[in-house]
Amino acid sequence: MTGKSDMAMTKLDADARRQALAGLNGWSEAAGREAICKTFQFKDFNAAFGFMARVALLAEKMDHHPEWFNVYNKVEVTLATHDAGGVTQKDVDMAAFMDAAG
Amino acid sequence: MTGKSDMAMTKLDADARRQALAGLNGWSEAAGREAICKTFQFKDFNAAFGFMARVALLAEKMDHHPEWFNVYNKVEVTLATHDAGGVTQKDVDMAAFMDAAG
Repeated sequence: MTGKSDMAMTKLDADARRQALAGLNGWSEAAGREAICKTFQFKDFNAAFGFMARVALLAEKMDHHPEWFNVYNKVEVTLATHDAGGVTQKDVDMAAFMDAAG
Repeated sequence: MTGKSDMAMTKLDADARRQALAGLNGWSEAAGREAICKTFQFKDFNAAFGFMARVALLAEKMDHHPEWFNVYNKVEVTLATHDAGGVTQKDVDMAAFMDAAG
């Protein structure tokens, strides 16, 4: 394993998570679990699903998948790394991609 | 307005809803609200999102949109017609399409 993949799968502690959140746009700690979440709002369903499609392609590439709820123009996203039992650099990377795509 | 579009937007009563559910595969009444729901399970995220993409194209065509939650290979769907305050023929049609696509 390379150092990079080690880091990507190591759970961030509370401090590292706060630091990561500070570098993102509008993400917060999920209630009651080690995860980060954000609600994206778009013009309409077309824009919301376009965003989801772009993220889905990244998710397949990363083999890392979001939890998300969509109704019309709204997408509520929760990110965590199941195998690590918390938030990892993978989640932070995906969150940054979503910020850019959203 | 045509009779068809009237019907599509008229809320089904409890009897009509039960009858519609009997004609669908694995749908049930949502708890605490007039809506129908089903959890679809797929082989993996790719298959789950492929299903969502097919439904999204129909949703845009119908101008009628699902509420759905996805995590990995699972898609939890809730259907209701907001403007009618309950389940209409539009929801039943979309549910039947999802059954065929799922």
